[in-house]
Amino acid sequence: MQAWKDYQNEHKDRFLNELLDLLRIPSISADSDYKGDVGKCAEAVKQSLLDAGCDSAEICETAGHPIVYGEKIVDPSLPTVLTYGHYDVQPADPLELWDSGPFDPVIKDDKIYARGACDDKGQFYMHVKALETMVKTDSLPCNIKFIIEGEEEVGSTNLGPFLEANVDKLKSDIVLVSDTSMISMDSPSIETGLRGLAYMEVEVIGPNRDLHSGVYGGAVANPITILSKMIASLHDENNHITVEGFYDAVQELSDAERKDLNDAPFDLDDFKKDLGIDEIWGEKGYTTVERTGIRPTLEPNGIWGGYIGEGAKTVLPSAAYAKISMRLVPDQGSKKIEELFIKHFENIAPPGVKVKVTGHHGGEPVVTPTDGKAYQAAAKAIESTFGKTPIPTRGGGSIPIIALFEKVLGLKTVLMGFGLDNDNIHSPNEKFDILNYNKGIETIPHFHKNFAEMNA
Amino acid sequence: MQAWKDYQNEHKDRFLNELLDLLRIPSISADSDYKGDVGKCAEAVKQSLLDAGCDSAEICETAGHPIVYGEKIVDPSLPTVLTYGHYDVQPADPLELWDSGPFDPVIKDDKIYARGACDDKGQFYMHVKALETMVKTDSLPCNIKFIIEGEEEVGSTNLGPFLEANVDKLKSDIVLVSDTSMISMDSPSIETGLRGLAYMEVEVIGPNRDLHSGVYGGAVANPITILSKMIASLHDENNHITVEGFYDAVQELSDAERKDLNDAPFDLDDFKKDLGIDEIWGEKGYTTVERTGIRPTLEPNGIWGGYIGEGAKTVLPSAAYAKISMRLVPDQGSKKIEELFIKHFENIAPPGVKVKVTGHHGGEPVVTPTDGKAYQAAAKAIESTFGKTPIPTRGGGSIPIIALFEKVLGLKTVLMGFGLDNDNIHSPNEKFDILNYNKGIETIPHFHKNFAEMNA
Repeated sequence: MQAWKDYQNEHKDRFLNELLDLLRIPSISADSDYKGDVGKCAEAVKQSLLDAGCDSAEICETAGHPIVYGEKIVDPSLPTVLTYGHYDVQPADPLELWDSGPFDPVIKDDKIYARGACDDKGQFYMHVKALETMVKTDSLPCNIKFIIEGEEEVGSTNLGPFLEANVDKLKSDIVLVSDTSMISMDSPSIETGLRGLAYMEVEVIGPNRDLHSGVYGGAVANPITILSKMIASLHDENNHITVEGFYDAVQELSDAERKDLNDAPFDLDDFKKDLGIDEIWGEKGYTTVERTGIRPTLEPNGIWGGYIGEGAKTVLPSAAYAKISMRLVPDQGSKKIEELFIKHFENIAPPGVKVKVTGHHGGEPVVTPTDGKAYQAAAKAIESTFGKTPIPTRGGGSIPIIALFEKVLGLKTVLMGFGLDNDNIHSPNEKFDILNYNKGIETIPHFHKNFAEMNA
Repeated sequence: MQAWKDYQNEHKDRFLNELLDLLRIPSISADSDYKGDVGKCAEAVKQSLLDAGCDSAEICETAGHPIVYGEKIVDPSLPTVLTYGHYDVQPADPLELWDSGPFDPVIKDDKIYARGACDDKGQFYMHVKALETMVKTDSLPCNIKFIIEGEEEVGSTNLGPFLEANVDKLKSDIVLVSDTSMISMDSPSIETGLRGLAYMEVEVIGPNRDLHSGVYGGAVANPITILSKMIASLHDENNHITVEGFYDAVQELSDAERKDLNDAPFDLDDFKKDLGIDEIWGEKGYTTVERTGIRPTLEPNGIWGGYIGEGAKTVLPSAAYAKISMRLVPDQGSKKIEELFIKHFENIAPPGVKVKVTGHHGGEPVVTPTDGKAYQAAAKAIESTFGKTPIPTRGGGSIPIIALFEKVLGLKTVLMGFGLDNDNIHSPNEKFDILNYNKGIETIPHFHKNFAEMNA
């Protein structure tokens, strides 16, 4: 479609600048200090949908941060694509490791550096600009609905109730999401599965006050020592997770499926070099690709306790804390895993301490079909713009909402992501290549065209 | 000495108010933000020595915080007591656990609540007021020199060089220190040993940046998991410390010595109740009194890594950190133990991570004699004011400087402390009972009188 290309070429500087403006809003959903900015970002998203050609767009208030909904209905008898994305971002700390301000986007080596550049402002905004392209070139082949939420990074707690309350309004034929990554621009790929998530916060409580480590040390259980021993025990010597019953519901893949996964391009030396590590780590009996794609994991995400300031303080602290999350695979259920974790963690606590375990948020693992029309429409779109058939892969991350779309709306999802694994999402110096951004904007209209034609 | 009692009764409100003023200065030596306050506190201490009757007092600058020196020379032929104390205090955090401001002292139930109330402002200031008492009643039986330093809580780094540079000026017969505690007011005691200290900071470094725990989790060594496993391994199943060579130089006490120690009043139920714990913890084969007095220990004092803010962040952090200190007993040397720890910690680091270990500050264990004149002078002083012979005990804490006094100045030390174990030193709500404060001021002149008479 030459008209799309021409339009996008003509407006590509503006497309970039509009994204940079969006990235300047620190819409950190996890931190209540940023509530105002999250609201401001929702307003900006709503306006961008209207500017791009939506018939209507609205801010839908929830018990938490608002959801932005917009739609462009060409003809109710045409197929409808429901585009999902999120405008909230991860916290930016540790701030001192950023080379530039997380909310002061800079372009360097043709990459956009900012929190949210890839996850997910840059990626959902490709869909806004793709809509604009189709509307302005008078070539929109289907109806489009947008759900851009503000709580993906904190568990999408209020999206389920929103879906349930709006089943008719959201009636569509497929969900399209760009919030995942490709192997590389030379090896385009489509993720066909995502892991679920159970995120726990634990507290190990010892004496009723911080103690002098000289006066009491050696005679009282130190919560840091005990928490360390408890965390240490969560993986055995083969790095299997020891939580009782943890693997009971895990679907093992067939040898053929595992072979397919491992045939995808992956270079272990490059992987180690990129991360600056001399050795990999993980569950015995599985490759790195399997460890991050089809196997469940358990990772501490944070730990703290005692004196963490400058210098030395000889304290035996009264408590120690950790955040621990587990990535889940079919058919592990997040609620069941939460229960197993709590039971296990309480069981392994020794006398002399008390433990408290609370769940933060969860999400279910999903596998998307590769034989349906939607996957074929996406694969063909990528072929049109990349010149190569995409490789199906399994993603390690979680987008808890995907399972909900199927459960509440009865809709399948296509994960057509344009990020790269080294985009530093959730890390300092998050980036998104301008090439990927533009390639996404170019590819998305092809999906709509293909999907509309296949469902005609 | 009725004259002392009368003078102290007459001035006891002022003695208390002066201490409260001193406690209002946040002289936190570990935190460079408080450097100005530390200096201000040194000035206040100097002035208090002059006001109490010292012939001279001076601020001695060091590479770190200043040392306050003062002296009252009655007659060079009389015995000289060198009083040591420290005007610096521990950091006050966690601030949210204080019932009142740490530097806004309040009196509640006849106790003074403030950071430094007991450790050591309240205790060294007893000596200032004891001097005043003797000077004003014209009954000072000996010479007194004061060293009140500002770096005890950060390892007394600059006191060694100060002693070395002033050997002649500091010439004395005994060092007298009130920076320890008694069993109780009903069971007065004198500490006859202190543990040494080696304080380490460790860093476990994994990938070169924080990673998304979904994309990379399960395939890369998580520094929190690894640090937890390393800390967990530092104690075996009997809570023996596993650092190779750690116990090599430990002096085992005879059965008779152990029996004496365990004969001192100690109620395990009260101990547990006071701390709010249901079970004690510690090295197999030793009692609580032994674990805190005559056995070396290893305690993490702080741990941190990854996301420790509000809510959930799915990060696999690039590094995790801990502060770990060891209390040492004769004849463990702090430098040797540092070396053993570093070697051990580096040895147990698995592939996939790097570790860095640095030493903060150390101090040597000491045992003070109970058969000398100085101990007898102290025991007799306590008998005079408490009506009971004090019990010799072994303290778990460390005052690294004590070993230096012997090494550099050739002086023995008497640890005549008036604190209680439940004074919450190094913890929120540090306190010092007004009764103990006054009892200290009352007892100290008796020590000087006894010591002068015995050395006449």
